[in-house]
Amino acid sequence: MTLQLFELVGTDAARPFSPYCWRIRMALAHKGLDHGSIPWRFTEKAAIAPHGSDKVPVLLHGEKPVADSWAIANYLEDNFPAAPSLFGGEGGRAAMRLINSWADVAVNGGMFPLVVADIPEHLGPVDADYFRTSREARLGRRLEEVKAERDQSVAHFRKSLEPMRITLRAQPYLGGAAPNYADYIVFGGFQWARVISAFRLLAEDDPIYAWREKLLDAFDGLARKSPGFAV
Amino acid sequence: MTLQLFELVGTDAARPFSPYCWRIRMALAHKGLDHGSIPWRFTEKAAIAPHGSDKVPVLLHGEKPVADSWAIANYLEDNFPAAPSLFGGEGGRAAMRLINSWADVAVNGGMFPLVVADIPEHLGPVDADYFRTSREARLGRRLEEVKAERDQSVAHFRKSLEPMRITLRAQPYLGGAAPNYADYIVFGGFQWARVISAFRLLAEDDPIYAWREKLLDAFDGLARKSPGFAV
Repeated sequence: MTLQLFELVGTDAARPFSPYCWRIRMALAHKGLDHGSIPWRFTEKAAIAPHGSDKVPVLLHGEKPVADSWAIANYLEDNFPAAPSLFGGEGGRAAMRLINSWADVAVNGGMFPLVVADIPEHLGPVDADYFRTSREARLGRRLEEVKAERDQSVAHFRKSLEPMRITLRAQPYLGGAAPNYADYIVFGGFQWARVISAFRLLAEDDPIYAWREKLLDAFDGLARKSPGFAV
Repeated sequence: MTLQLFELVGTDAARPFSPYCWRIRMALAHKGLDHGSIPWRFTEKAAIAPHGSDKVPVLLHGEKPVADSWAIANYLEDNFPAAPSLFGGEGGRAAMRLINSWADVAVNGGMFPLVVADIPEHLGPVDADYFRTSREARLGRRLEEVKAERDQSVAHFRKSLEPMRITLRAQPYLGGAAPNYADYIVFGGFQWARVISAFRLLAEDDPIYAWREKLLDAFDGLARKSPGFAV
């Protein structure tokens, strides 16, 4: 049965940028699973509604749809047990749920105001309008106002990554000696930012910068070869 | 070979309060390992210097000393492999290193200003003086000034626990269906606060409150039976 992944794109259908879709791109590569990619845009709700979701990623395994990045990672782990493990056992699966929540809140949530204003330029007119209206409602401000603060607010974001920095001083990857889904969870956010924004999130001497470089090179440069900014 | 744990106490030698020592108390109970407790106070550096540390916990396994809570947890996992696992496999071990760092920074670090001013009353004069001087240097302010803000600053602390709250809405423990070291890492901080401060860290309707109640009852009420405040 073939695997097909709905992935968020904008005007360039070959430039997927969702942090949650990138978690699954990396997870599929980790498992060594060939798959197709179905470009999907913010306002194409009708294309995924039959699969029971209004957001991506949605994975189709033959006819079967699986929605939500955490659910998809678990589905891949359970249905392809002979392929390299994403979690490294049940303790890893459980612990990564907290890492998943931490990344959603602190990493993706922390990056959001730093890169959000750069997203509309990657979108067609209908998506750009939808995106600006929905995100400005969430932020309570214009995107440009949020962007104007980012040179200052990036310091707070970098500080919030301290738990990860301490970890990477003790082991090469969040997954230990080699990367696993713990790494892809967090890397998805950094790849999202890289694809849509030239803003420099990390200082070059940050251990997280070196970690991101290694993940950009993983799987024959899967993430680095995808269109993005060199930051 | 016997196991002996150096544990931080104050005037009451039967009231251990270090968050890091409590991680190991719970880990030893999880492994079902009998052990002795050696009360240790802040200024008794000479008692543990021969074991290569100036901080507790220090575990003695026969003659062999192991210092630092993370190192001790790993030592217990590796040297008592037949007892219930603390990590649930290598993926859990690696992922919990990030949880350990997150708890150090966000949980223990976040609680510190909320409970620190209540600690000296549990200490003898020499320790109280040492504690106040060293902590006020770290804080840059008097303990009483920090305490005066806590009714306001607790809101920020509660918000910072959101990744854990999201996780506990999805699974009963950080370790999954049952508690493991991921839970003890974080619980150690809450037990530290409970032992030394009557300040209310959590609202009763918080899923983290219910989780803490279950851990207070674990191992025949090990943590609840230890002297502390009902908060």
